[in-house]
Amino acid sequence: MSYAKQILAGDTASTVDAGLLAATIEALSDCAQACTADADADLREDDAGSMVTCIRLCLDCTDVCTATVGVISRRTAYQAAVTGRLLEACAATCARCAEECERHADMHPHCGICAQACRRCEQACRNLLAAAMS
Amino acid sequence: MSYAKQILAGDTASTVDAGLLAATIEALSDCAQACTADADADLREDDAGSMVTCIRLCLDCTDVCTATVGVISRRTAYQAAVTGRLLEACAATCARCAEECERHADMHPHCGICAQACRRCEQACRNLLAAAMS
Amino acid sequence: MSYAKQILAGDTASTVDAGLLAATIEALSDCAQACTADADADLREDDAGSMVTCIRLCLDCTDVCTATVGVISRRTAYQAAVTGRLLEACAATCARCAEECERHADMHPHCGICAQACRRCEQACRNLLAAAMS
Amino acid sequence: MSYAKQILAGDTASTVDAGLLAATIEALSDCAQACTADADADLREDDAGSMVTCIRLCLDCTDVCTATVGVISRRTAYQAAVTGRLLEACAATCARCAEECERHADMHPHCGICAQACRRCEQACRNLLAAAMS
Repeated sequence: MSYAKQILAGDTASTVDAGLLAATIEALSDCAQACTADADADLREDDAGSMVTCIRLCLDCTDVCTATVGVISRRTAYQAAVTGRLLEACAATCARCAEECERHADMHPHCGICAQACRRCEQACRNLLAAAMS
Repeated sequence: MSYAKQILAGDTASTVDAGLLAATIEALSDCAQACTADADADLREDDAGSMVTCIRLCLDCTDVCTATVGVISRRTAYQAAVTGRLLEACAATCARCAEECERHADMHPHCGICAQACRRCEQACRNLLAAAMS
Repeated sequence: MSYAKQILAGDTASTVDAGLLAATIEALSDCAQACTADADADLREDDAGSMVTCIRLCLDCTDVCTATVGVISRRTAYQAAVTGRLLEACAATCARCAEECERHADMHPHCGICAQACRRCEQACRNLLAAAMS
Repeated sequence: MSYAKQILAGDTASTVDAGLLAATIEALSDCAQACTADADADLREDDAGSMVTCIRLCLDCTDVCTATVGVISRRTAYQAAVTGRLLEACAATCARCAEECERHADMHPHCGICAQACRRCEQACRNLLAAAMS
C-alpha cells in the first residue's frame, strides 16, 4: 500500500472512497512519469524530428497529471466546475496522448508502454469523476 | 517585453495572437506566484487554523496555473476538449480562489492582493478561450 | 514493473542502471504524493496552527521531488554541479522534512507515514548519487 | 509591482529583503516560461533532431526553476544544506542551459532570448545566495 494511500485512509471524514482516490493518484503519478520518460525516449530516436507531436503531447500530459495529483489529494470541497472540469481535461489529455503514442507503438515500444499508462490514467480519472458525480 | 513573449512573437506560423498568448502566460505565472505566497502568508497568521480553505484553494490554483502555462506555451494542435477544457478548469479554479480570498481581504491584505491576481488570471483564461473558439 | 521503468529499461545506451534509476523515480514520486497528502492532513488537524513548519516542509519537499523526477528521467549528460547538486538538495530536503514529521508521528500517524516516505526517498537519492559518482 | 512582491513586502518579520526575494522569484518564473517556450520553439525547427541537448536542458531548467520559486516563496527557516543547495543547483542548471542556448543563438534567435533569461536567473539565484549567507 502506498504512503499516500495510507495517509488518505486515515481521513475518516472523507466522502470519497480512499481506495479509489489512491488508485487515481497512483495512475496519475505513473502516467506523469511515463510521459516524461517517453518524451525523452522520443528525443533519443533517429527520427526525433517526426516525433514532435508525440513529445508535445507527452509534456502536456505530464503537466496536467501533475496538477491533478495535487488537486485531488487535497480535501478542498468538490465542485464539478473546478475539480470535475480538471478531471475531464486530464482524461481528455491522456486519451489524446495515448492515441498519438499508439500510432508509434510498432516502431517505438516505449510509445506503446506510455500509451498503456495514459489509457489506465484516463480510465482512473473517469472512475473518480463517476464516483464524485454520484 | 518578457522573454517568453519575444520567443512566441518569433513564431510566425502560429494562429493565436502572440500578444494574447503572452498576456495569458504572464497572468497565469503571476497568479501561481501570488497563490504560493498567499498560502504561506496565511500560514503566518495567528488564525492559520481558520484559513484552511483559503490555503487549499491557493495550492490548487498554483498547481492548475502552472500546468496551464506549460500547455498553452506549446504549439500542440488546439482541441476544445483538451486545452479548452483545461482553460475552463483554470478559470473556474481562479474564480473560486478569488472568492475565498476576497472574504479575507479586510482582515488580511495579502488575500486581497491574491484575489486581484486570481481575477486577472481568470479573465486572461477566458480571453484566450474566446479567441481560440472564434 | 512500472511504466517508466519499462521505458528506461529499453534505453540500452544509458550508463546508469535502469533498475536503480527507476527505483529512485518511484521513491521520489511516492514521496511527492505523500508530502502533498500529509500537508493536507496537517491542515485537517485541530492544531493546524502548530503544524505550520511541517506543512511548509512538506510543500517544499513535493516541489523538489517533482523537479528531481523530471531531471533524472531525462538523459541530459550528468554533471555533478547540476544533477548531482539537485540530488543533494533533494536528499537534504527529504531528511529535513522527515525529521519534522517524526516529531509529530506519535500524535499524528499521517506524519509518521510521511516520514517513512521521506527517509526512503532520501536514501534513494543518495544511492543514485553514489552510483553516478563512481 | 508584482502581486507576489506586494504579498512578500507585507511580511515585516522576514529577515530577507522583500525586493531581493521578489526579484529572484520573478527571474525564476521568467526563466521557467522562457525555457518552456524555447524547448517548443526548438521542436518547431527543421533541425529539431540536432536540438535534443538544448531541449533537454530547457526542460530540466523549467523543472528546477519552478521548484525553486515554490521553496523560496515559503518562510521555511533557511538552511544552507537545503535551500542554499537548491539555489546552487538552480544557478548551475541555468548556467548550463544558457551555455547550450548561446551555441544556437546565431541560427535560432529564440535560443538567444532564452539564454538571456537563464543568465539573469543564474545571477538572481547567486544574489539571493550571497544575501542569505551574509
